[in-house]
Amino acid sequence: MGIVRVSSSVSLDGFSAGPDVSTDAPMGVGGERLHRWLFGGGGDREVAADGTTPGGDDAAVSAELYARTGAVVIGRRTYDIGVDLWGDTPFPVPTFVVTHRAQEPRPMTSATFTFVTDGVASAVAQAVAAAGDRDVLVMGGAEVVRQALAAGVVDEITLNVVPVLLHGGSRLLDVASDRHTELERTALVATAEATHLTFRVVR
Amino acid sequence: MGIVRVSSSVSLDGFSAGPDVSTDAPMGVGGERLHRWLFGGGGDREVAADGTTPGGDDAAVSAELYARTGAVVIGRRTYDIGVDLWGDTPFPVPTFVVTHRAQEPRPMTSATFTFVTDGVASAVAQAVAAAGDRDVLVMGGAEVVRQALAAGVVDEITLNVVPVLLHGGSRLLDVASDRHTELERTALVATAEATHLTFRVVR
Repeated sequence: MGIVRVSSSVSLDGFSAGPDVSTDAPMGVGGERLHRWLFGGGGDREVAADGTTPGGDDAAVSAELYARTGAVVIGRRTYDIGVDLWGDTPFPVPTFVVTHRAQEPRPMTSATFTFVTDGVASAVAQAVAAAGDRDVLVMGGAEVVRQALAAGVVDEITLNVVPVLLHGGSRLLDVASDRHTELERTALVATAEATHLTFRVVR
Repeated sequence: MGIVRVSSSVSLDGFSAGPDVSTDAPMGVGGERLHRWLFGGGGDREVAADGTTPGGDDAAVSAELYARTGAVVIGRRTYDIGVDLWGDTPFPVPTFVVTHRAQEPRPMTSATFTFVTDGVASAVAQAVAAAGDRDVLVMGGAEVVRQALAAGVVDEITLNVVPVLLHGGSRLLDVASDRHTELERTALVATAEATHLTFRVVR
């Protein structure tokens, strides 16, 4: 059985999208800056001049996420905004949409969207069953990530920290709780385009 | 002339102190967790098992900050809560307190507190003059850091990212602005206790 992961690009000030997310601006206004490391716009894949020896590069981080992901959980808003852009499921694996509106499964080219109306923990449980040996990626948006963290179902958090302050938008890690959550860093890949930090949730 | 730096311990969710900061809980409730890397409580200084070769360790990060700092800027609340705890200036260098209340300079053992009533930019300018060849540290709290960032007077930001989610408290990087701020990572030191990330502000 795989694990349940969050992996998200964030600005140094913690935003996973800019303000005013819409079909015209699926990453919010200015938020596409957060995905430059993924799509190579301006990235030269060089090691940053900071004395570190990265364990890989941006493309390897992305490829590993792709290879490890056996099922995906997304929020309703991400589905509504993303489905026409993707023209398929976001990853070629079963994708579970957390929503209040019941709806028949929607088969796409690579896999099927399944609509889950009884909450994020149920969506994650169904995704775990579908993922087999691979991992479940709680992809986003920020709200479904926060719900999954609050529900205690996340095993690992990867932040692809982009060297920019967005100064506004959707804050990824904004979970109300009286208890701290201890983490342990388990991976670090540093490039000029992003600092990829992975933490295990300590239980 | 040195540069103007922010250097702060933060949780992965971006808090530089827990909730309810007071003289009894100067780092807020539970916020002392953020300074374990500084004071060595439980830290074993070992390299994390993540394949990286850190450029130094927690003590070296702290020692470098100490050596580079020629003047400090703090907020009024940090002064009020800290002065009796420290029994001196927080670093042994001229310290400028951003406040609305005019007050005579207060000499301490190592250096003097100077109270600045015309804003953070003025406090930073006075600190730059006092620091000589060394750097100015905008130490905190979060509000004075945000004011300094908003005023555009910060050259470098170091986040000592502690592997914990605090889920509440004072958020360090929460500056309202219509413009993005581009950064460049210039240093990275990774230990089991913290991931020390330094960014230059690109102008």
